[in-house]
Amino acid sequence: MSSNSFGKLFTVTTFGESHGPAIGCVVDGCPPGLAIAPEDFRADLERRATGRTRHTSQRREDDDIEILSGVYEGRTTGTPIALLIRNTDQRSKDYGNIVETFRPGHADYTYWQKYGIRDPRGGGRSSARETTMRVAAGVIARKWLGERHGVRVRGYLSQLGGIVPAAIDLDVVEQNPFFWPDAAQVPELEAYMDALRKSGDSVGARVTAIAEGVPPGWGEPIYGKLDGELAAAMMSINAVKGVEIGDGFAAVSQRGTQHRDEIRLDGFTSNHAGGILGGISTGQPVVVSVAFKPTSSILVPGASVNLAGEPVEVVTKGRHDPCVGIRATPIVEAMLALVLMDQALRHRAQCGDVGTVLPRIP
Amino acid sequence: MSSNSFGKLFTVTTFGESHGPAIGCVVDGCPPGLAIAPEDFRADLERRATGRTRHTSQRREDDDIEILSGVYEGRTTGTPIALLIRNTDQRSKDYGNIVETFRPGHADYTYWQKYGIRDPRGGGRSSARETTMRVAAGVIARKWLGERHGVRVRGYLSQLGGIVPAAIDLDVVEQNPFFWPDAAQVPELEAYMDALRKSGDSVGARVTAIAEGVPPGWGEPIYGKLDGELAAAMMSINAVKGVEIGDGFAAVSQRGTQHRDEIRLDGFTSNHAGGILGGISTGQPVVVSVAFKPTSSILVPGASVNLAGEPVEVVTKGRHDPCVGIRATPIVEAMLALVLMDQALRHRAQCGDVGTVLPRIP
Amino acid sequence: MSSNSFGKLFTVTTFGESHGPAIGCVVDGCPPGLAIAPEDFRADLERRATGRTRHTSQRREDDDIEILSGVYEGRTTGTPIALLIRNTDQRSKDYGNIVETFRPGHADYTYWQKYGIRDPRGGGRSSARETTMRVAAGVIARKWLGERHGVRVRGYLSQLGGIVPAAIDLDVVEQNPFFWPDAAQVPELEAYMDALRKSGDSVGARVTAIAEGVPPGWGEPIYGKLDGELAAAMMSINAVKGVEIGDGFAAVSQRGTQHRDEIRLDGFTSNHAGGILGGISTGQPVVVSVAFKPTSSILVPGASVNLAGEPVEVVTKGRHDPCVGIRATPIVEAMLALVLMDQALRHRAQCGDVGTVLPRIP
Amino acid sequence: MSSNSFGKLFTVTTFGESHGPAIGCVVDGCPPGLAIAPEDFRADLERRATGRTRHTSQRREDDDIEILSGVYEGRTTGTPIALLIRNTDQRSKDYGNIVETFRPGHADYTYWQKYGIRDPRGGGRSSARETTMRVAAGVIARKWLGERHGVRVRGYLSQLGGIVPAAIDLDVVEQNPFFWPDAAQVPELEAYMDALRKSGDSVGARVTAIAEGVPPGWGEPIYGKLDGELAAAMMSINAVKGVEIGDGFAAVSQRGTQHRDEIRLDGFTSNHAGGILGGISTGQPVVVSVAFKPTSSILVPGASVNLAGEPVEVVTKGRHDPCVGIRATPIVEAMLALVLMDQALRHRAQCGDVGTVLPRIP
Repeated sequence: MSSNSFGKLFTVTTFGESHGPAIGCVVDGCPPGLAIAPEDFRADLERRATGRTRHTSQRREDDDIEILSGVYEGRTTGTPIALLIRNTDQRSKDYGNIVETFRPGHADYTYWQKYGIRDPRGGGRSSARETTMRVAAGVIARKWLGERHGVRVRGYLSQLGGIVPAAIDLDVVEQNPFFWPDAAQVPELEAYMDALRKSGDSVGARVTAIAEGVPPGWGEPIYGKLDGELAAAMMSINAVKGVEIGDGFAAVSQRGTQHRDEIRLDGFTSNHAGGILGGISTGQPVVVSVAFKPTSSILVPGASVNLAGEPVEVVTKGRHDPCVGIRATPIVEAMLALVLMDQALRHRAQCGDVGTVLPRIP
Repeated sequence: MSSNSFGKLFTVTTFGESHGPAIGCVVDGCPPGLAIAPEDFRADLERRATGRTRHTSQRREDDDIEILSGVYEGRTTGTPIALLIRNTDQRSKDYGNIVETFRPGHADYTYWQKYGIRDPRGGGRSSARETTMRVAAGVIARKWLGERHGVRVRGYLSQLGGIVPAAIDLDVVEQNPFFWPDAAQVPELEAYMDALRKSGDSVGARVTAIAEGVPPGWGEPIYGKLDGELAAAMMSINAVKGVEIGDGFAAVSQRGTQHRDEIRLDGFTSNHAGGILGGISTGQPVVVSVAFKPTSSILVPGASVNLAGEPVEVVTKGRHDPCVGIRATPIVEAMLALVLMDQALRHRAQCGDVGTVLPRIP
Repeated sequence: MSSNSFGKLFTVTTFGESHGPAIGCVVDGCPPGLAIAPEDFRADLERRATGRTRHTSQRREDDDIEILSGVYEGRTTGTPIALLIRNTDQRSKDYGNIVETFRPGHADYTYWQKYGIRDPRGGGRSSARETTMRVAAGVIARKWLGERHGVRVRGYLSQLGGIVPAAIDLDVVEQNPFFWPDAAQVPELEAYMDALRKSGDSVGARVTAIAEGVPPGWGEPIYGKLDGELAAAMMSINAVKGVEIGDGFAAVSQRGTQHRDEIRLDGFTSNHAGGILGGISTGQPVVVSVAFKPTSSILVPGASVNLAGEPVEVVTKGRHDPCVGIRATPIVEAMLALVLMDQALRHRAQCGDVGTVLPRIP
Repeated sequence: MSSNSFGKLFTVTTFGESHGPAIGCVVDGCPPGLAIAPEDFRADLERRATGRTRHTSQRREDDDIEILSGVYEGRTTGTPIALLIRNTDQRSKDYGNIVETFRPGHADYTYWQKYGIRDPRGGGRSSARETTMRVAAGVIARKWLGERHGVRVRGYLSQLGGIVPAAIDLDVVEQNPFFWPDAAQVPELEAYMDALRKSGDSVGARVTAIAEGVPPGWGEPIYGKLDGELAAAMMSINAVKGVEIGDGFAAVSQRGTQHRDEIRLDGFTSNHAGGILGGISTGQPVVVSVAFKPTSSILVPGASVNLAGEPVEVVTKGRHDPCVGIRATPIVEAMLALVLMDQALRHRAQCGDVGTVLPRIP
């Protein structure tokens, strides 16, 4: 069971380094008969791509995807679907200064201590470039979840540094480069990011994703819980330091009378649980939030060591995101979709295609 | 790959319901030659047990453990170690009122929707009774980690409702029933809990666990990350709604210059990362925090439905914890130990018994 | 992923040593709602048990099974089913002479080389005692397969030393202690075994099992093939040295025109394939045969070494089977049932509950 | 856990259809620091390739391999190694006649019944084309096993139809297109194959592979046995119907005194066990034999059905192997190497890098 594979029944195995010849993935376990074409991937890959605005890395990734297997005459056949993207804009010289040193706060150091060797070009395997393939695999999951179960997954940036949305309107999220749910605040965010970039520093962010239409019953008890797998999925994204389901850490200071979601026949009265109880979906929207740390690749000098074990001062030039969380919304959505699809298949395996016992409560 | 199993190479499979004949686990993959005796389990099981103080459930679990296999003449043989605890104090009649109804905020409802059948006695499989076996398995992991690698795992209650520790002194944690790190606040906590219990309500809590002595290099990139597996481990504990590594959600509003842990030859200057970068341990203490929701089993009536799909009002009598987080410290520690041991074996598989390349930085 | 666990979605984890306190298993992934009672296990455990006739080991195992979890009011709940059997007839002194030496042809030697420690009592974990729990788990699989899909699994001894059945009549198999399909040959077998026992030697055997009613489509291509998993299942049984599907090794000298099973609308014209093509069931009976070696625990002295690395001569007293294959029929059947059930769930996960596209060919 | 992945710690995931754009694999878990270059793959891929002699399929596969990831400056980095081969010689029109019909004895029929859709071009995913990537992954395993442990894996054709080798000389195997261990018989084989090809029929074969230098202790008890995993590995190869370890089915008619390998200080006196006892390597050569059925794609007409469920007569034109076993030797060797490498890492995980307790017996 590969550490580069995700999912039990809907399994995604990714490969590739930031500046190697290509990145790719193998998606195994997809049901047969799903229509999939290269065009299906474009919108989500573009949402995740760098180089779209001045607020993200200026590396320009074209991300033309090739379907190598598993699709015949436009439909999945039940065999593994391999997807490939050639790396094109690899200015490895940008990274020359980090070959001999370890950026403080970066995986450079731990890869070296673990393996005694690393591909330093663009962070190699530890680069967020890998998440491109999560988004690609997520496209397949989202399509199946939508067609088969009417599930819809959406996300937004729910905090940028100290700024929180004044309102949540999911319909405006796609209309600004921050995936921000309040259009009125966009100028404020732009000014904030411009100042940040000028300072050579970076900042953290919080992303929230929601899946609507998830039926009750998805998720396996104990060590295969829907929330447990979501936590693993989210924490496996680069730079993530925290995961919450529903109210998350706010539940620490809540009373039971506040937190519990009462059930009436016309619907739950609230969704503090984030749609999951005992590791199993309730039928309410599944809500997950994720904390992204500020990227460690910044212009402000920092103390570190080099390969020779000597003290050095590190400055990271190159084309980095001052806030990795900005482009992370599609990645969080993709991981939510991958987990849900896997759980849908697991549920079907054990409990069959039958529906739930009680009528679904809205 | 069972959803009641945890870990890839050091695998724990648990079984049992709260009020069934017994609970138990099978621990597979333990290296041979480790000394293990029934006495080793007592201290940690006692720390987790109910019925010790008036602040936890009054169910009295004796938790006498029997080693059924895998140990010969006091030492592990490399074969699976089965542990068994008979359930003794099962007042199933306490739960009679919940057989026909679903407690709002409880797994009752989702188990029913998933399976169309559930063992209602004491919450059945969804009861925190299952975590007893996590603590038991954790004892084996902690012993091996300590003897083989000098790793020490400790934890404490880092928030109770709105109360946070005024000081962190790990040496006082074991001297009060709250696992609280500031002895001076214990009377305040007692008063708070007494009032809470009287109100028939419950409250959330936050637990933090720390592993000292973890060498650099543990953890597998991408989908087997040390933090990813910790997140899954913690989120799989009953009532958990959030997980943080190091600074966690606080990193959202930090700058890169604040968050990054600079490296000097005499040591890291800080540990915002919680000892993990790129999913791999840095050699600093591994720090994880967990949010527990207030338990849903409370005396204050709440709206719900019953098996017939009719609206009902639910009151949960019986012997429940008004704050499940209080007894959760040993569980969080155990899960941290289980993840570390599994990663230690995984690291050894791929990279061998050799140490790291650079000298370890304190 | 434990090496003491079998199956991907219907997962059986066994534990226990031959002369430890108990053996047991945890069955995970069973669909909810299946009626299971302790009585269900009796017949198959009795078929596998020693001490029934003079032709098998005289160890008397009572094999009273206890259901520890996963069943509520007589029906499976979807949670793990733990089964326990206490070891009662453990004359460990019988084995005293093998503590310091390694029986030639026995796992004694390899366990010691692997682990540096072993439980020598009755072979410890390497004893065929473990297969009791396979038979127990197989009972659950057989019941579900029968009720849900009309699948029936049967087996027989298809060779004993040099003796092969003169006729195959599955209806007489349960009427003799050899699981032999030709009643007329039973006296010959009894005479053969009496002479063998007297000689202090042992002999090999071949067992064949058949599953009727398996629908087309079960089995996963490439590394999850139905026949691949059957091969692993059978080769994991103690003393097995070979596995065949359908014609097996006879296919080596066949022509394509001989081997292929032609398809007519009223049925396949033959079943050389043993019901599997490309790793997937065809709808014909699934047929698997297994070679058992002669047991190594015999009275005839043999050259070996001892713990000190000195040459010794080994004689194995104690209560051993002169032909382990005789009691193996229920074990082979059980493994066939376990593989089929796992594949049934896997098929349902990916392809749903729908039937096949073409009408089934008989 | 993907059904297109093989191995637990050294994991190979393959993808691709016979006539799709490409085939490939992802090798995960390889230790860092192993030197790997595209040239390393050439010899083994050439050995497996079609079109080398008139006795195999005339499809000409160039099999130029591209390393897409996991290797930096010529050495493995510990991250996944992706290998890609473009399909070049795809004369799909050759297969036009099988789109609407099912070849008797072919996976055509079962894929259709399972998925309701299949890629008919060249057998799609069920084609032996997939085994190219097994050979490629096997190259990595063989190199690591050789460099790290001195293990050497070799194989030969041990039966072709009714012909068996008169002598076994592994040194001549690579000097004839049949991998035959007796040079004197090669003309006989050539005449046999010429006549077979002319008849439009096919024939079965048997392949044997041997691993020398395997240390004692590799293999995991019960369900992770070295022989169990070998059986799964071999049975997962296209057209395989049987697997034997050591004496295999011959053990059925052996006595215990014949079969057991006695141990003297200067060595085992025989190797009936094929180097494995109790699922764990003894230190003797590991010996495995595999039965290949005659291919079903032949010119002699056979009865079958078509997509409409009507009776048809099928003739398979195109470029097929009259004996798939001839080219199978490198595949069997590769699977043996993959299993051994996986077990080597698994052994290291649980038992560390230490050697065995007793001195190794030759």
